Amino acid sequence: VAALLDCFMRLNNNFQGLYMLKTRLTELLNIQHPIISAPMDLASGGRLAAAVTNGGAFGLVGGGYGNSDWLRTEMRAAGNTRIGCGFITWAMAGNTALLTQALAHKPVAIMLSFGDPRPHAAEIKAAGALLICQIQDRKTAREAIDAGADVLVAQGTEAGGHGQRRATLTLVPEICDMVAKEAPGTLVVAAGGIADGRGLAAALALGADGVLMGSRFWATVESQAHEDHKRKAVALSGDDTVRQTVTDIARGYDWPVEYTSRVYNNALIRRWSGKAEDQRKTAEAARKGYFQAFADGNTEEVGVIVGEAAGMIHDIVPAAAIIERTIAEAEEIIARLGSLRFQG
Amino acid sequence: VAALLDCFMRLNNNFQGLYMLKTRLTELLNIQHPIISAPMDLASGGRLAAAVTNGGAFGLVGGGYGNSDWLRTEMRAAGNTRIGCGFITWAMAGNTALLTQALAHKPVAIMLSFGDPRPHAAEIKAAGALLICQIQDRKTAREAIDAGADVLVAQGTEAGGHGQRRATLTLVPEICDMVAKEAPGTLVVAAGGIADGRGLAAALALGADGVLMGSRFWATVESQAHEDHKRKAVALSGDDTVRQTVTDIARGYDWPVEYTSRVYNNALIRRWSGKAEDQRKTAEAARKGYFQAFADGNTEEVGVIVGEAAGMIHDIVPAAAIIERTIAEAEEIIARLGSLRFQG
Repeated sequence: VAALLDCFMRLNNNFQGLYMLKTRLTELLNIQHPIISAPMDLASGGRLAAAVTNGGAFGLVGGGYGNSDWLRTEMRAAGNTRIGCGFITWAMAGNTALLTQALAHKPVAIMLSFGDPRPHAAEIKAAGALLICQIQDRKTAREAIDAGADVLVAQGTEAGGHGQRRATLTLVPEICDMVAKEAPGTLVVAAGGIADGRGLAAALALGADGVLMGSRFWATVESQAHEDHKRKAVALSGDDTVRQTVTDIARGYDWPVEYTSRVYNNALIRRWSGKAEDQRKTAEAARKGYFQAFADGNTEEVGVIVGEAAGMIHDIVPAAAIIERTIAEAEEIIARLGSLRFQG
Repeated sequence: VAALLDCFMRLNNNFQGLYMLKTRLTELLNIQHPIISAPMDLASGGRLAAAVTNGGAFGLVGGGYGNSDWLRTEMRAAGNTRIGCGFITWAMAGNTALLTQALAHKPVAIMLSFGDPRPHAAEIKAAGALLICQIQDRKTAREAIDAGADVLVAQGTEAGGHGQRRATLTLVPEICDMVAKEAPGTLVVAAGGIADGRGLAAALALGADGVLMGSRFWATVESQAHEDHKRKAVALSGDDTVRQTVTDIARGYDWPVEYTSRVYNNALIRRWSGKAEDQRKTAEAARKGYFQAFADGNTEEVGVIVGEAAGMIHDIVPAAAIIERTIAEAEEIIARLGSLRFQG
């Protein structure tokens, strides 16, 4: 049997290009590849979301902190492409008209991250959109299950931008076990530290139905992140990123205390790290300069919002190329894992 | 081809019990299964190390902070079993006679963690032992490569006990890429957050040659951890663990500042977290009580040294059972991953 199997595996590998990975996520979202792009504030516009969907995965526009004009422009920019829209829940909760506005565009899904999704679930479901909830531990997972989420995105601390303490490698299987017991119809997607086919294959091995990638799509041609920030990410190792609150103090954003943000550990972060009280005294006066430096693409005095996956980002290419190579690599890995099996 | 392959996969799955996972690690160490047990201070005695090796994996005695009598007793307890011995490098460096003593037992391998391995490599190699180096980032990986390590254990922040900031999911592929370029003959083993077949399959997908498991073997019948600590681990989620320095201050151990230790986030940790200076003032007077409470199996006033994998630890069984179920589960996952491939 082993010899014959081996023969067929080899034959099969010649046809590798014809294969795809089918999971509950590809079924639910009616997509080719079990990959979602993160709804990253200011980076995930309509262009990136549409490029991801057109590449066979599922793109999300980043509703961010809630700018109605930006949301309108970007949802329109995605045109008729099947996309979703993601919100920072606690920010959107202060202006729920934004959710209503997004739903008017008939998105396939709404993703809620960082805050209680339960008050918003009914409106989302009534509009016919799927509910995707990003969670970081058992507590937030339970809230998402209670909200009737269709998909839980289990986000590890490796992720760029906001998140919490748990790592993807342990969070995903623990949440899969929890969901299997409490809400077996709910899907689990892995996020945080995934940037290539290795991460996708690992996530599937952990029991996830797919992956959500942030940093990797943030550093693509279609991303609206500043080109100098993208280039910086290519140069960085995962060792160069750190979780911190300096950038939120700088911007004056009142994040709940359990959330920190992973960014490049640059001059700004090193200068204020562990000195929150001192920084707060100067932050307001420095704020205009911060936002200007951000717009200018400065990489040392603003948050360069990239995760530990930076060490696996080596080029800036179109989103479709990322999807294609991620699937091809995961395919190759799955074939290789099969070949490790040895009849003893 | 797909239909025939599917047929043979099914046939093959019926013979699953006959299969093993062969990697460069099983070859190098001449073992059946690509699994190593961590050399955990006070928990990894000769009994656990021997049980792991007898279960088809590779066991390591924990040399810890360097107690010569303990080391002698435990290396002897392992008898003629093919095992290795691990040291906390910076502690052993203050008393290198311990390394010489361990090498006299002709261990298959010496594992060095937390400190520069280069001063000790020559003695280890001259004694005919393999050199395994635990690393946590690119800097420590480079030192290990320079030392001529045979195996790099890339340890993520999920791990119980001491470690650094990087997570396993991103550290392993980044280090695999580094090693592929700079020292392709060197093996990479994943550690931190791995407690079952899901973690093993994920690690292999990331490019590792195998896994090192700590917490999961710490909570086995043969582990010398206190039974009350093991039982506590069964009750915990990964959410209940935290990186901290409280336990090192309590014990008076001078760890280099880059290393923190993950433990159960209990009353002791919550009381002193963020108050290192205050704790230092009281630590010496409290020390005797700390060690007594540890010996008594107190779980709220001492370090219960378990990692984020706690959420996947549901029973206390013999080490051999852990190995058997981990391999069986990884096998199943690899077969399942193969079945996700779909001819489009």
